[in-house]
Amino acid sequence: MKIDINCDMGESFGRYSLGNDAQLITRITSASIACGLHAGDPLVMQHTVRLAQENGVGIGAHPAYPDLQGFGRRVMDLTPEEIEAFVLYQVGALAAFTRSAGVDLAHIKVHGALYNYASTHLPAAQAIARGVRRFSQELILVGLAGSLMIQAAADSGLRFASEGFPERAYNPDGSLMSRKLPGAVLDSPEEAARQAVKLANEGIRVTSGSHSETFKVDTLCIHGDSPNAIAVSEAIYNALKAQQLDLVSLSQLLG
Amino acid sequence: MKIDINCDMGESFGRYSLGNDAQLITRITSASIACGLHAGDPLVMQHTVRLAQENGVGIGAHPAYPDLQGFGRRVMDLTPEEIEAFVLYQVGALAAFTRSAGVDLAHIKVHGALYNYASTHLPAAQAIARGVRRFSQELILVGLAGSLMIQAAADSGLRFASEGFPERAYNPDGSLMSRKLPGAVLDSPEEAARQAVKLANEGIRVTSGSHSETFKVDTLCIHGDSPNAIAVSEAIYNALKAQQLDLVSLSQLLG
Amino acid sequence: MKIDINCDMGESFGRYSLGNDAQLITRITSASIACGLHAGDPLVMQHTVRLAQENGVGIGAHPAYPDLQGFGRRVMDLTPEEIEAFVLYQVGALAAFTRSAGVDLAHIKVHGALYNYASTHLPAAQAIARGVRRFSQELILVGLAGSLMIQAAADSGLRFASEGFPERAYNPDGSLMSRKLPGAVLDSPEEAARQAVKLANEGIRVTSGSHSETFKVDTLCIHGDSPNAIAVSEAIYNALKAQQLDLVSLSQLLG
Amino acid sequence: MKIDINCDMGESFGRYSLGNDAQLITRITSASIACGLHAGDPLVMQHTVRLAQENGVGIGAHPAYPDLQGFGRRVMDLTPEEIEAFVLYQVGALAAFTRSAGVDLAHIKVHGALYNYASTHLPAAQAIARGVRRFSQELILVGLAGSLMIQAAADSGLRFASEGFPERAYNPDGSLMSRKLPGAVLDSPEEAARQAVKLANEGIRVTSGSHSETFKVDTLCIHGDSPNAIAVSEAIYNALKAQQLDLVSLSQLLG
Repeated sequence: MKIDINCDMGESFGRYSLGNDAQLITRITSASIACGLHAGDPLVMQHTVRLAQENGVGIGAHPAYPDLQGFGRRVMDLTPEEIEAFVLYQVGALAAFTRSAGVDLAHIKVHGALYNYASTHLPAAQAIARGVRRFSQELILVGLAGSLMIQAAADSGLRFASEGFPERAYNPDGSLMSRKLPGAVLDSPEEAARQAVKLANEGIRVTSGSHSETFKVDTLCIHGDSPNAIAVSEAIYNALKAQQLDLVSLSQLLG
Repeated sequence: MKIDINCDMGESFGRYSLGNDAQLITRITSASIACGLHAGDPLVMQHTVRLAQENGVGIGAHPAYPDLQGFGRRVMDLTPEEIEAFVLYQVGALAAFTRSAGVDLAHIKVHGALYNYASTHLPAAQAIARGVRRFSQELILVGLAGSLMIQAAADSGLRFASEGFPERAYNPDGSLMSRKLPGAVLDSPEEAARQAVKLANEGIRVTSGSHSETFKVDTLCIHGDSPNAIAVSEAIYNALKAQQLDLVSLSQLLG
Repeated sequence: MKIDINCDMGESFGRYSLGNDAQLITRITSASIACGLHAGDPLVMQHTVRLAQENGVGIGAHPAYPDLQGFGRRVMDLTPEEIEAFVLYQVGALAAFTRSAGVDLAHIKVHGALYNYASTHLPAAQAIARGVRRFSQELILVGLAGSLMIQAAADSGLRFASEGFPERAYNPDGSLMSRKLPGAVLDSPEEAARQAVKLANEGIRVTSGSHSETFKVDTLCIHGDSPNAIAVSEAIYNALKAQQLDLVSLSQLLG
Repeated sequence: MKIDINCDMGESFGRYSLGNDAQLITRITSASIACGLHAGDPLVMQHTVRLAQENGVGIGAHPAYPDLQGFGRRVMDLTPEEIEAFVLYQVGALAAFTRSAGVDLAHIKVHGALYNYASTHLPAAQAIARGVRRFSQELILVGLAGSLMIQAAADSGLRFASEGFPERAYNPDGSLMSRKLPGAVLDSPEEAARQAVKLANEGIRVTSGSHSETFKVDTLCIHGDSPNAIAVSEAIYNALKAQQLDLVSLSQLLG
């Protein structure tokens, strides 16, 4: 069995450093790289693409709402047309760095508030998918397992990778438990590792009344900016390896 | 004989409109489109690429210093590495829109203060050329006739198009007369048209002591944001046509 | 009877011009000046404060969501604490220019999406009022007649000026008819002038089932960026004058 | 004898943390707080003003070139009129937070590239002083000891505080040795402490040919973002205390 581990990367900006990309990169198989509108800048993008390339990690673009001060974590009321054009812009900007490095751009995962919003709002999800599709039909769209992003990817003829979160508790309906609730974040490396293995092997079990369903999980998301990110990523990586799971990037997984 | 007419386009931003692209586009052969850091935004870029495509006009990217409030007209003390990465970023962003429209990106012309600075500072010029070259060796670099941009393009193995200014007076050494001096701007359509024809036919005659030289001119720049831009562009276009000059885009000219 | 006419001003930015402030200023009694985060920049703010001062027009700050590309017209999901701090920041920035010009800052009116959102969301309205109140209890808060902004102003101990829109049709409940509906905008100068007189004399009549109520109107808003803004403002100004209405700035009205 | 210790503070932005303000604040007497254009945002400004107030530290504004990506460290070719208006804008924005906290704004120190540029360019220095003076004649202008900022402050009728750098080596002419040269940065806490004491007691000895002169030093700058900032500030603070120097804020020093 195969699984991908992805992490948001390249979120530094100018004088500001964020995350520990150089260490985390050795424990993941795909990097989603910020594109300059919520985080990242041209120098950071260039550096992060090279870092991923040197470590043989798959590369994706990580577009977001244009909101640097809010780090792309605040919903902005963009029209679908705006979302589509802003996604295409950011994908193109990052793709210039992969192209110049002679490496493929494999996937697109949108960031933060746009990710969450699009999970439950089809017009936004479709706008994202259209923006991606306009750049290339070869790109893999990454989104929340069980979300409306799946349909949006299908509508645009894109491959889709379902994402699961080892460090987050799930509600019975398959949505993520709100961070405001106790127990929403599994911050012990052991707990996260156990959930990673479960997500990889079994997916997400969802029940709604008498109906029950399983969302498969293609890629596991590591949060690079949590205080114990290194320990968590290490634990997850080792636990998956111990289970003989094949850790591969998204293009190898879905290719 | 062949000549290109280019104009900066897509300089609107959000609620702000600038220039009269829809009218000017019919009197030029190449459009240099702003990339969002000094002017333009993803929707404007998308719209302007389509406008150029519909009118059969060659498309270029128009990168600049990251200075929206200053419209890219103030020198910023960027390192060559920063210039290179910022150029590559902007080229990639615009290229996403040409790619999605199924049309070629033909040339790159940097904007405003970066254009002027790089004309006389080789490390900046070389950084621009490297940024362009990293995206594609097929791109044509546009710069001031007789400037250091020529050497920078050669160093990176890029084709170069020399630009002349029908609306600006020249110093004897081939540099543009400062806008602060009287007579620096030829704002009558007739004068501009006469100079356009001269530049196209004869290039720029330069003398320095006993030495004399001629800078050839491949492309004539129209200023789209001057009050009489339409009249000037009309006059130039008609004068060139009347001289049997072949008006072609840069890729046709240098292809 | 007294009434104020206000208009959003100082919405140019860098190279971008917007509105016809120099002409409109002679037909209004209060100017709400953009503060640099959705429109305006330090030079524009300085210029607009002087323009208002020279024309004896009352001056207010016009804070907005930090969204230049969206011109403050897109709702952003800011926390109340963020709204409060962003309002205070913008008020302070504009107040530096009124202070240095030796003229009073009289009122605060928030812009665009924040104005609309706060009309119906009390926590946002209260955050705005707190931001204003922290700068000065002397400031007048301007908001939609009949909206939750009234309560927010009261909660913070601020005077409130109710705003009416001569160029917009109203729903029976006192809210503005959506711009997406036909007839929502009264764009003939005569119609706008008739509604201005009615709003000034009678306020806004509201009915909801058997209940009926009148919202008083202290200030009439002129849209400075509509194509016929000059004609509309002229018609409104003259119609109010013809009715012997006393046109005064907000501090004179509520002082 | 009295001396002030100042440190740049409030340089975090949105998701990005920078500096260790909470610890450093206990070892300084004045804080220069970023104003949102090169660093800082309204929430950070609010927080930092409160932190300084709670610790009884004098508060100043720290305006900069409008260049977040470059952290205000790149010279931008602004006109004096632009510098003046941008300084006034930033001072006003910060002053809103001091005003709302009921604490005085004591001083202004410009940041980074603007600080260095204005030290040797009188029109820029005068533009800064005019911007400050337009806000209030009570403000103290802080600048490099021996620089043109002294004359600019005098021209605007502002009090001036001369700044010295315990962590930097000086050239014989009183300028700072370039960071590119070996020995330019005194990064051992002991060395910095020794130089702090010397600057406080003796000022900066300057010789040029047969001419010699001493620049007095009113305030010592601590670099808050160096890796050993805490140790250095601790050492400097203790060394000055051990010398019976009276550590006071700028308004106490020059009041």
